This record gives sequence, structure tokens and C-alpha cells, in this order.
Amino acid sequence: MEISNEERAHILVQALPYIQKFAGKTVVVKYGGNAMISPELKSAVMSDIVLMRLVGVNVVLVHGGGPEISEMLKKTGKESKFINGMRVTDKETMDIVQMVLAGKVNKSLVQSLSRHNGKAMGLCGLDGNMLMAGKLAAADDLGYVGEIREVNERIINDAISDGYVPIISTIAGGYDGNVYNINADVAAAHIAAKLGAYKLILMTDIRGLLRDKNDENTLIPVVNVSEVPMLKKSGIISGGMIPKIDCCVEAVRRGVKRAHIIDGRIEHSILIEIFSDEGIGTMFY
Amino acid sequence: MEISNEERAHILVQALPYIQKFAGKTVVVKYGGNAMISPELKSAVMSDIVLMRLVGVNVVLVHGGGPEISEMLKKTGKESKFINGMRVTDKETMDIVQMVLAGKVNKSLVQSLSRHNGKAMGLCGLDGNMLMAGKLAAADDLGYVGEIREVNERIINDAISDGYVPIISTIAGGYDGNVYNINADVAAAHIAAKLGAYKLILMTDIRGLLRDKNDENTLIPVVNVSEVPMLKKSGIISGGMIPKIDCCVEAVRRGVKRAHIIDGRIEHSILIEIFSDEGIGTMFY
Amino acid sequence: MEISNEERAHILVQALPYIQKFAGKTVVVKYGGNAMISPELKSAVMSDIVLMRLVGVNVVLVHGGGPEISEMLKKTGKESKFINGMRVTDKETMDIVQMVLAGKVNKSLVQSLSRHNGKAMGLCGLDGNMLMAGKLAAADDLGYVGEIREVNERIINDAISDGYVPIISTIAGGYDGNVYNINADVAAAHIAAKLGAYKLILMTDIRGLLRDKNDENTLIPVVNVSEVPMLKKSGIISGGMIPKIDCCVEAVRRGVKRAHIIDGRIEHSILIEIFSDEGIGTMFY
Amino acid sequence: MEISNEERAHILVQALPYIQKFAGKTVVVKYGGNAMISPELKSAVMSDIVLMRLVGVNVVLVHGGGPEISEMLKKTGKESKFINGMRVTDKETMDIVQMVLAGKVNKSLVQSLSRHNGKAMGLCGLDGNMLMAGKLAAADDLGYVGEIREVNERIINDAISDGYVPIISTIAGGYDGNVYNINADVAAAHIAAKLGAYKLILMTDIRGLLRDKNDENTLIPVVNVSEVPMLKKSGIISGGMIPKIDCCVEAVRRGVKRAHIIDGRIEHSILIEIFSDEGIGTMFY
Amino acid sequence: MEISNEERAHILVQALPYIQKFAGKTVVVKYGGNAMISPELKSAVMSDIVLMRLVGVNVVLVHGGGPEISEMLKKTGKESKFINGMRVTDKETMDIVQMVLAGKVNKSLVQSLSRHNGKAMGLCGLDGNMLMAGKLAAADDLGYVGEIREVNERIINDAISDGYVPIISTIAGGYDGNVYNINADVAAAHIAAKLGAYKLILMTDIRGLLRDKNDENTLIPVVNVSEVPMLKKSGIISGGMIPKIDCCVEAVRRGVKRAHIIDGRIEHSILIEIFSDEGIGTMFY
Amino acid sequence: MEISNEERAHILVQALPYIQKFAGKTVVVKYGGNAMISPELKSAVMSDIVLMRLVGVNVVLVHGGGPEISEMLKKTGKESKFINGMRVTDKETMDIVQMVLAGKVNKSLVQSLSRHNGKAMGLCGLDGNMLMAGKLAAADDLGYVGEIREVNERIINDAISDGYVPIISTIAGGYDGNVYNINADVAAAHIAAKLGAYKLILMTDIRGLLRDKNDENTLIPVVNVSEVPMLKKSGIISGGMIPKIDCCVEAVRRGVKRAHIIDGRIEHSILIEIFSDEGIGTMFY
Repeated sequence: MEISNEERAHILVQALPYIQKFAGKTVVVKYGGNAMISPELKSAVMSDIVLMRLVGVNVVLVHGGGPEISEMLKKTGKESKFINGMRVTDKETMDIVQMVLAGKVNKSLVQSLSRHNGKAMGLCGLDGNMLMAGKLAAADDLGYVGEIREVNERIINDAISDGYVPIISTIAGGYDGNVYNINADVAAAHIAAKLGAYKLILMTDIRGLLRDKNDENTLIPVVNVSEVPMLKKSGIISGGMIPKIDCCVEAVRRGVKRAHIIDGRIEHSILIEIFSDEGIGTMFY
Repeated sequence: MEISNEERAHILVQALPYIQKFAGKTVVVKYGGNAMISPELKSAVMSDIVLMRLVGVNVVLVHGGGPEISEMLKKTGKESKFINGMRVTDKETMDIVQMVLAGKVNKSLVQSLSRHNGKAMGLCGLDGNMLMAGKLAAADDLGYVGEIREVNERIINDAISDGYVPIISTIAGGYDGNVYNINADVAAAHIAAKLGAYKLILMTDIRGLLRDKNDENTLIPVVNVSEVPMLKKSGIISGGMIPKIDCCVEAVRRGVKRAHIIDGRIEHSILIEIFSDEGIGTMFY
Repeated sequence: MEISNEERAHILVQALPYIQKFAGKTVVVKYGGNAMISPELKSAVMSDIVLMRLVGVNVVLVHGGGPEISEMLKKTGKESKFINGMRVTDKETMDIVQMVLAGKVNKSLVQSLSRHNGKAMGLCGLDGNMLMAGKLAAADDLGYVGEIREVNERIINDAISDGYVPIISTIAGGYDGNVYNINADVAAAHIAAKLGAYKLILMTDIRGLLRDKNDENTLIPVVNVSEVPMLKKSGIISGGMIPKIDCCVEAVRRGVKRAHIIDGRIEHSILIEIFSDEGIGTMFY
Repeated sequence: MEISNEERAHILVQALPYIQKFAGKTVVVKYGGNAMISPELKSAVMSDIVLMRLVGVNVVLVHGGGPEISEMLKKTGKESKFINGMRVTDKETMDIVQMVLAGKVNKSLVQSLSRHNGKAMGLCGLDGNMLMAGKLAAADDLGYVGEIREVNERIINDAISDGYVPIISTIAGGYDGNVYNINADVAAAHIAAKLGAYKLILMTDIRGLLRDKNDENTLIPVVNVSEVPMLKKSGIISGGMIPKIDCCVEAVRRGVKRAHIIDGRIEHSILIEIFSDEGIGTMFY
Repeated sequence: MEISNEERAHILVQALPYIQKFAGKTVVVKYGGNAMISPELKSAVMSDIVLMRLVGVNVVLVHGGGPEISEMLKKTGKESKFINGMRVTDKETMDIVQMVLAGKVNKSLVQSLSRHNGKAMGLCGLDGNMLMAGKLAAADDLGYVGEIREVNERIINDAISDGYVPIISTIAGGYDGNVYNINADVAAAHIAAKLGAYKLILMTDIRGLLRDKNDENTLIPVVNVSEVPMLKKSGIISGGMIPKIDCCVEAVRRGVKRAHIIDGRIEHSILIEIFSDEGIGTMFY
Repeated sequence: MEISNEERAHILVQALPYIQKFAGKTVVVKYGGNAMISPELKSAVMSDIVLMRLVGVNVVLVHGGGPEISEMLKKTGKESKFINGMRVTDKETMDIVQMVLAGKVNKSLVQSLSRHNGKAMGLCGLDGNMLMAGKLAAADDLGYVGEIREVNERIINDAISDGYVPIISTIAGGYDGNVYNINADVAAAHIAAKLGAYKLILMTDIRGLLRDKNDENTLIPVVNVSEVPMLKKSGIISGGMIPKIDCCVEAVRRGVKRAHIIDGRIEHSILIEIFSDEGIGTMFY
């Protein structure tokens, strides 16, 4: 579509009320899925973040990296084993997880943002003791899978006030001296809560919460967290959606104004969420 | 034209390199002509300014107010007299000029910007001794028409750093205790130079410098200030364009990076100038 | 009278305890009446303000401008109409009021203070949304006569902390987009209250509150605000004094330490008030 | 003489241009002689200092204490011995000198200023290594009489910027670990020079430099430092005036704008000097 | 003993946890007794203070000076008279006390610290009105012996934040304009309490509180302040220990975390107290 | 050896002059070799760094990680290939290098320092565009082995001023969008130069520069950089020492005051270097 400069200017101006609304606020984005794999989507996400930062939004990027971990494990001849969707993580696996997340995925995101003229600082939960964890209580022994006990947000705020976009790998230090792998959605929720963020955005590969999961036209755009138990009972929230929505509920309970599940497969989905009335995906409040 | 949220986001992102380029820079806009008369254009200008400020551009608005002055003079039974396009300004006229500019036009611009959620501070050249003038040297006695001797930019910088858009009426204090009327284009050029502005933008009611003044398709988009004498000799720069272009040349000579003559009749012309490669109107460098 | 340098020094030193008492405090002065008309008195007021500022008092000047408004209305052929001492203000009149106050009176006070080496910033209630008003509730339709709903003191404090004496015209923005004329005494009281001022000083053309209004020797120097109802009942407070004293009472009720009605016809009456034990005029506490 | 409040206010206002001139400037006062002995004069000096500080002058007080030293020496049975007006200072004498200056005179000045509501900090040349000295080169062995080698003004500036009037005893630390007595006039001149003071004021018990030393009507009010050699040759500068005037010359040579010899026997002589055109005593520039 | 560089480094590292514990905390040291007389001990104390300051401890030094006072009184032919261990202080004695403490002892401590490359500021209770006192209520008239009514800690904090070690003579200003002598232990306790100090350390010439005062092996290392009355009853706390321990108790009651009585005759006793687990002397908490 | 608390205190005090000398200075430590492998040595290095930071030294830690890289390559079935001591680095190898350095070695150092109560921030050359590189010019194609073109020290200074010890992996971003491996000694030298460091310390597994490389008693403690060419010619500087010493020379040439080659196999070698006169290893100046 051919768009004239006049129309472009007009569209910029229409973004004004949204910019005014979000200036100075903190938005924590959990980045993952296709949006992290497709180069076009990745580039679009980086642009979105740089733009948000420039108009005064304090963006914090939290990332996972499942596929790269599996690939690296395969290279070293380790098998990936999962129980209830959680990776069984022995010492050797944890080493690979740490290397891939904090050394590869994190730093390549830093480099991507730099190439879009953003100022990025790549951190993990060990830096400045940001994330302290204990071993996750679970029926089966998952090894070095942890649950967050403490978020020391100081290093994140230092990074923000020095002008950087903090990009965070969700490995945490244990009180026992070990390193623990933390689910990135959960970590993003904890971080958003501790920062007093205005929004938590979880990027996924689905449209949002669907009334009928086979029909994208049945998207539920807005959910009050008090409705969640009922939606679980009725089976609308089920399967892989459960832990993600639990993160949203938890974040909102701890003071985050809005939590979102958005479709990372749509280009600029973050911007659309921020800069339109309808938003995108499902919002929990 | 129907534009989807995806397309909107895409357009926002395309503005990114321009925003990055101008963030932290100062742009002095001389506001006048139709853009100040038509309510739609006025509203668009206000939006443009608020948007620029939000993305980190330090905007300074300098305004004239010829039509309102003439109208008020008429109301009080004074006749407007012009010599070479300059108003002959006796004491009584000067009083009206001051009231209309600093009391009516200025404050109603302040109010307009406020209504667009901007933070405005209405100042004139008397505040903080911003503009000091002497009587304009001219063949005929024009009365209280002044020329700038000193720009004390301190109050403008105070306003900017406190977060306001300074809106400036171009009346100046004289060393003799009188008040002088200053041509707004000239004042804008002086202010831009003293502030070390990146851009000076003069809003007019023409497309820009035209090779054939009856054909808008002959717009000259870019002029090096060294070409101006030749363009004058050849008659391409003539009539009312001469003083405006002299302001541009003067501003560039004193260190302003770019000076522009743009068409205020086009909605969002300032944004188009700032946020596109082609810009709009004629640029002097 | 011939005064030696020794005596001068002695007098300066006697001002010391008063200077120590007021350093760092805020004093709001409503300026009006003869003190604004006579050039000698005006010059004395300007000196007083500059001196107070130099010894560390944060002075805020609020002004009216009735006579100039009437004069300008006359020039444009409009008649001044009053109901209960308040000007009936149609759209056209409001335009004149705004121009005269914010464009003429305000800026000429700025220039006067500058000539006394003061740093002045001329503001009105529209700047930085300082004064927000609604239509004054009254029996008769007075047009654009407003009452204050909100004082946003931020712009005043910015001016003070940047080293300026804020000089304020009391026109206010309406939530309906109109401009309203505000009684200057009332505005000064509201501003003093919002700033947490130490003193509110209303300059008038009378000695203060007189027990017998025909005998200046019956001045009541000090009044507790709780005595005001009784003084009204007894007729001592009557006529034009009522609204002025109501302003004083209101200011004191809202936390201003002292409110004064002083005689602007006496040269340096502000200084005398500030720098002597007896003060001048009538003090409400 | 009866002076009305109106006249008082008028006199305050007449001080305005002087206050404006000195605000933010540094004035070093060497305090000594009768002004330090008479309780009335002492009280007047304290008032002068507090007033100057309140109107923004940074006052530094440097004091001597000859009479108290002699008295204390007498009490302990030591004889005061002088060569060329300089006290012969053995170890025991130096101990007494230090005690009297830094312990008695200094701290009682601190207390006096406090009683006038001033904020004083009593320091000596040892504090913060302010004054470093070597043994004075002289024909006769004067013992612990020193000459300044280094002024570390940091502690004085710290005191000023924390809001105190620094009151300084002129004993200095030696590189050899000893303490040396420094002539207070000389120390004041060095300190004024290092601080980049605007004025150095030496309080004495004479009118100033007299053309005929027996006739106070022959006061020379202004001397250019280049005239001093000639005035010495002609005998007009002679005796005890020589070292004092040498201090003034030295201070001016090192960048102090004006150095003054004033008569401390006149009440408020400092204020008169600062706040009148004619000043008092003799000014060197 | 020959200690290798490796061993030295090792010992430094062992101090690390103590340094981390005390960094940023305030420690008030009452300095007196043999530690102030022996040149070796004095030098060790100075080193200790400079080291503590360098590792981030805010040290405040409070000193007495009994022996020097007595010596000076003797020199001037005054006799020292004591009632219950307190010096009877007439006007003349008070003068000597002030001179010796604030002029001699204080300033020579300043010089000592400077020679150890410390930055010292010598103050007394008169400076910045730090200590305000009334006459001590006592059975016998002790003259100018005072008790503290007010501690204005501002000047101490100013000195600390400007990087100085404040060294304080405990003479105080009276509301009656007199100067009062204050017991240095008591003053140190008051100052520690007002500063919210972490530790108060009283340097004495005994090991600490001994169960059997003739046997240094019976040192009681730790005492809870609630045990003090019992220890007094049992006679373990007796004689000269009573007022010192009362100071410790008072300080702890007013919020000081720990108060110590340590043996100043042991070289580096302060450092040993701060940088070892066992500490030295007796600790009250 | 049994060392008493008194002796410990004495040793602490002896460190005082060194602490005073280095307070506020920047020291860049290249960490590697045995000191990074042995848990005891590693723990000692961490203690040294925390101590230095506490006494005011700004430590920057730069690390390599050769052994871990080789081990990881082996695990993934890649062979390590070297030409002239430099690893041939294809894309896949570079990926492993980045992961191991920035993800494993770096973050485990961060964790170690945290366990010693230090505040660490793990960064690599990609963060904040700290290190920009081009392909190393070499006879053989080494793949992604880079040479530094630009050091953007901003992010390092931000980390320091926020109170962190920056720990840096020496991978760099290329202008071509690739990532390059940088020799850690070289990177440390460049960083030290750009920071204006006082000292560069290269930790190695040798004593320093030996006159006879088989005899540790022939250590050359001090070398002027101008002597280096001669020492190379004479064969004293040879083999693996050449590039290390070239780094030292380069750092000194660019303004680093001293560069050191020290023996990381000696516990607390950094502290010994900093806190003794003789130092340790070889110093270049």
C-alpha cells in the first residue's frame, strides 16, 4: 500500500495519546517463541523496543531459549528429558543451559538491539545477585530447576537509569552456591512485580486466550483475574496456557496493572498492544 | 483510507531513525500564516509540537500575529500603515502590538498546547530580558520597530529544562526603556542561532522557493546558502521571499545546521519535514 | 534630612532580625491601586521586591489592572458594565481583559522590575495550566468571570527556583476551553495558600481596617480571623472591605501564616510591613 | 535622631545597588585592634558580618590577638620580647600563642557571631592543612615566627558552601612538624589572594593613609598600587603603615580587586565601606 | 617477627569481613589517658583513625585534656581543686580550660592526624552551636561545669560529608552566654547518640571491667546494660568506673548499638576492637 | 604461624600508605591461568578484588578462558586448531567461544565475587557496544579472530559508578555484524588505556620476566618500556612473553602509569603487588 507523508504524519500523531500514557512507565516483556526465531519478527521486536525506549517507556526484556538449549545439548550428545514440560536438569545440562542462555541467546539479543541503535546491557540472575533461587519443590527430582526466592531489582534499575535496555537471562544463584534454571515466564512475572511495572507482556505463538482453541475468532480480549478459576474449571484455560496465565494472575496480584498474552507471530505485536485502544491478544487486570 | 493496526505500527517504526536523529536537538519553529488561522491546521501544529517534545526534541515556538494586530487597531480606530512591508509603529500602535502579541496570541497558543496535553510557557522578549533591541535603522522613521542587539537565552533554556515548550512573542526591551516590535522571522533566526539550534523552520503560506513562482512543481528542495546571491540576481528569490530567505541564510551562517521554509497550509508539515527523508519545502544549509 | 553613612549602616543592621526571619520564606503580594499608577510608588514597589528577593525572600507578584481594562474598552467603544462591583464580561470584553492584563500590565511590570535589575518572568493562569477555573456561580450572568478550581503551583515554583520573580496575571483556563477573568485578590489568596506562603499582602488605597472609616487614627492593626464575623456584624468591616478581608481570612484558614491589608499609597509600604515590628496596615492571623 | 519607618525603608532601598554588586562575592576581613576590644564595636562587627552573609556576601574573618597573648604570657611569667615589631617566639611562647589564638580569641569570636544568630566555624591554619609555613627568614632569630608557603583553601570553601562564616586563627603547620605564628595581616592577604576574593579589608586603629599623619583631614581615599613606592619614598607611607600597605599591594598584585585599610574604631565601618560610594579609609586597587 | 608479604596479604584479607561490616557506619571515639600522652600510642591511634576512615568508617574523635589543663593552671599560679573528681571551675579556670582544650590539645591532634595524611577539622562545642549546656546541677558549686542540653550535630555531619575527621573539644556554649566545661566521656556519649552512631569507644587506662580489679585475667568481655545495676550492687562496678559505664549505658539506651571501654595502653586497641571477633576490653550492648 | 591481634592490627596499619596511594585509582586486572583454575587461588583473587574495592580502588576484571573453550569444543566434537598460538575460529567455534566466555566463565566469576560479598556485573564487549572489532590482519585466515578498533568505555564507567566490579569477557562486535574473539591480554591493555587506568596487571603462570628463564632468582623487577627492544634482541624477552610484554608496552605508551606481569600461582599476588614496596613480578613503566 502506498502511504503518503501526510498520512504517515497523521498516523504518528494518532499515537500521541498512547505515548503520553506510557511515558515513564515500566513494561516487562517476556520474549520467546517464533518472534525470537524468525529474523523478520526479531528485527521487528528490536525496533519496537528501541521505539518504546525513545518515547520514554522503560522496557525490560526477559528471554528464554528452549530450542537453542536442546540443540546444544544434542551437539554435546546429551539427551533432553522433560517431566510435565519441565526439563530435567543435571549439573552438566545446567552448565549448557547457562552457557546457551547467558552466553549465546542473551548476548546475541544485545547485539541485535545495538544494530537497531539501541543501548543494551545483557544480564543474568547472577549479576548483582538479581535472582536468588531455591530448588523447585516438585514430585520428581528435576535437578537444577529453581524457584525464585528473592528479586534484587537494584541492578535492573541501575541499568535503566543509565539508559540501557536490560536484557535478562533467567538463571539464578542458589543460596547453596549452585546455579538454577528458572522458567522465563515466571521470572518475568516476578521481575515485573518487584519493579512495580505497569505492564507484563508474554509473547507466545498463539493469538491469546481462545474460547474455542481451534477458532481464532473466539479470542477473549479482556479477563479479570477473578474470572480465571472459573475459566480453568470450564476448560477454556487448559494445557500449556495454565502456567502462562498463572504468571499473569500472579503479576497482577502483586501490583502489575496489566498482564498480556500476545501473539509474537504478528509483526510489531508489542507496539500494537501499546499503541492502540483494542490492543492485541488477551489482557489480564 | 482504512489503515490496520499492523500498518500503523509499521509506520511508527519507520519514524524511528528520524526520532533517533533528533532526540535531544533543538528546533526553533516560526509559526504564522494560515497555520495559525485555520483551527484544523492549528490543532495539527499543536499535536506535532507535543509529539516532537515527547520523543525528545526541544521545540521553541516563535510567533507573529499580523492579522490580529490589524484587526485590533481597526477596532480602536487606528489605521495600519506600512512602509516596505513594515508597520509604522507609533507609541499607541506599539501598545496594541504588545497587548495583542503577548496578551492574546501568545496566551491563546499556550492554551491550545495545554489542550493537547503539552506543557507551555508563554514568554515575550521582555521576560528575563530575553530580547534587547535598538531602533531599526531605516530610511523612513518606522517608530518602535526594533532590531535585536542581544539575545539572553537563559530564560528559554530554563523553560526547556523545566519541561516546558517556550512560546515566544517577539517584542523586545530597548536600552532606552521603550518596547520595540521585532519581525518574528528575524527574531526566530536570532534565537535559533543563540540556542545553537539544529533546525530553524519558518512556516509560510507558500510551497517553498519555486523556480517559477506560478508553478508549484518547480519547487527547489535544497539550497546551499552560497547559492542565494545568484538566486537573487536571477530573480528566483524576489519580493516577500527575500527577507525570509535572508533569515535562513543568517541563521545558517551563525551555526544553525538547517533552515527551512515550509508550507504551513499542509497539515503536519513540521512532522513531515522532521520525519521524512524528502522533507517538505525548501531547505537551506 | 541629612543622614550620615554611620546612621545608614546602623539602620541596615536594625533590619537584620527581620531579614533573618524572612529568609527562605514565600510572600505573595497582590499589587494594585495607586501603587500601580504613580510612577514613584511603582518604582518604590519594584525596589522593595528586588531587595526582598536579594535577602532571600521568595516574592510572588499578583496583579490586577482594572483602570487599564476600562480605558482599553473605552478605546474600542465597549462600555464597562458592573454588577455588585464585578465586571460583566462578554467574549469580546474577556478578549480585551486578557490582552490588557497578560499583554500590557504584566509585561510592563516585567520590564519595570528588569529596569531595577530584578529577574522577572511574566506568567498568567494559562501558563503551565497554573489556574483552572469554572464559571463563577452568581445570581446574575456575569459572563466569563470565573472562580478558581485548581492551582497548579509547579510553574510558579519552577520560576522561583530558577531565580525569577513570577509576576502573575489572574486569567484562568476553563475546563470548557474558555478563558475566565479571576478577581486578583482572590487569586492571590489561592496562590498563597497553595504555595504554603508565609505572608499574603494585599496592597490597597486605604490605611487598613479602620474602626471609624473616616478617621485614619482608628486603624485596627491586628485581627484574629475568628473576630471577623463580629466585626462584620458591627459594621466595621463593610462595603469594599468585605471581599478583601474574606480573601485574608480564606488564606489564613488554608495555612498562610499572616495576611495583610496595607496602604499602597505609602512609599515602601511592603518593606515597612516586612522590616518593622509595628508593620503597617492591618494584619490577619 | 528619630527616624521613621518610611525613612528606614528608604535607606534599605538605597543599599540595594551595593547588595547587588557584592552578592556572591568573597570579602576577607582582617579583624583586630580596638574593634576587637570594645564590646560595642565587637557587637557592631558581628552584626555587619551576619548582615553581609545574609545578603549573599561570603565573608571570611581572619583575626590576630596580640594583647591577649601578651596578657597570658605575663600571667605565666614569660616576658614579651619584640624585634622590629615582631614577637620573639620560643617554643613555650608559641604554645601560649596557639592556645590564646585558636583556643580563646577564635572560639570567643565564634560564640559572639552565634549570639548574633550567625553560623560560625572556628578554624586555624592547622585544620585541613590550611596554612603551611616555613621559618621566617630574618636577620635575628625570631624562633617560631613563620612565613606562608602554601594556602590550602579547600577547608575554607567547604565551610562557606556549608553555610558557615569561617573564623581563622593564623597559626600554621610547618613542614618540620612545628607550629608557626603568622602575622594576621599577611595571612589575610594570602588567603584573600588564594580565594580570589573581591575585597580584602584590614581593620586598624587609624583613619587610613594620611598625607599628614597628624591630621585626619588629609586622608588619601584611593591609591593605585603603582603609586605606593613613591608614597614610601616621600615618607607618607612610613612606620607601622608599611607592612599593612605591603599586604594590600601584595593582595592586589595577586588578583584581589580592592584592598582597604579602614578605621575599626568607627562603628559599622565594614558596612560603610561596602554599602556606600565614598567608602571609608583608604582603598588600594 | 619476620612476616612475609604473602602473610601480610593474608592478614589484610582476613580483615575484609570487618571492613564490610563497618563501612558507612559511624564510630565515636573518646580519646584520653595514656594513649594521648605516649607519642608511640598517639601515633598508633592516628594511624588507626586514618585507616578506619579510608575503609569507609566515619570516625568522630572526642577528647579531654585533664593533665594539660592542670599543668597550665600551675604555670599561671592557679591551683586545681576537685570535688568528687570534678574540677571546680571559676571564670579564670574556665578560660584556661578553653584555651588548653580548644587551642592546644585539639589543634595538636589535628596536626598529628595531618601528619598521618588524615584530613582533620578541629571543632569545639561552640562551633556551629554544636553543644549547648546549662550549669551542672550539683550539691557543691562547681562553677562553669556544665551539662549538655542540646547537641546540634549538623556541623559534625557537614565535616564528615566534606571528608574530614571531626576532632571535638568538649566545651559548650551556655544559654547565658557563658562557656561551660563538659566531661568528655559524657559529651562523647551524647554525640554518639545524636549521630545514631554504631559504636561508642571510651579509651581508658584499664583493661576493661574486671571481676576482680586487681586481676586482669578476670576481664568481663560483654555486658548487657540490664546487668549494670546488679554489677554495681555487687561492687564489681565501682569508683571511677561508675561514670564511664553510666556513659556507656546511656549511649546504648539512646540507640548506640555498642559501647566499649577499651585499654588505650595497648597499641592499636581501636583497630583490634573493630577488626577482630573477640574485640578488646568490655562491650556494653 | 600464630599471629596475635596486636600484630594483625600492626600489619593493617602498615598497608595504610598503599591504600592512600591507590584510593580512587583504576586498576585493570587480566585474570587467567592457574589463578582461575585452582579453587584456593580463585577464592584468594576474589578476596583481593573485594578488598581493593572496599578501600576505594576501582577494579576492572578482564578474563580469558582457553581451557574451558577447548574442553567444550571437545565435548561437541570440534577440534581445537592453533596457528602461532592463536585459535583458528570458524563460525561454529566462535559460537562456542562466546557461550563459554560470556555464559560460563564470566557468569561463574560473577557468582564467585558475589559469594565473597562483592557486587559484580558480568559484561562482554557486545554490551553497550563496549568493544568494536575488525578481522585480525594475519598471514593465515584465522576466521573470527578480531582486533579492537574502538573501546566505548561508557558502560564500564557506568558499572563502576553504580558500585559494581565490571567483569569482562573479551568478545567484540564487528562492524559487519559478526562477533569476534579478542585476545584477553590485548583487550585488557586497550581497556586500561581507554579508562586512563593507573595500573594494568596481567596474571600469568610465571614469576615475571626472568633474565635466565630457567632460574626464578633472575627476575627482573622493573623495566622501562624503552629497554624492551634491547631485551627482545638479547633473547631475554622471547616466546610466549613477547605478546604479553607488547601489551604492557602498548598500555604504558597510551598513558597507563604501570603495567605488571605477575605470578598468579602465588596466593594474593595482586594484593602483594598493590600493598608492598617491592611488589611482585615485573613492572613496566
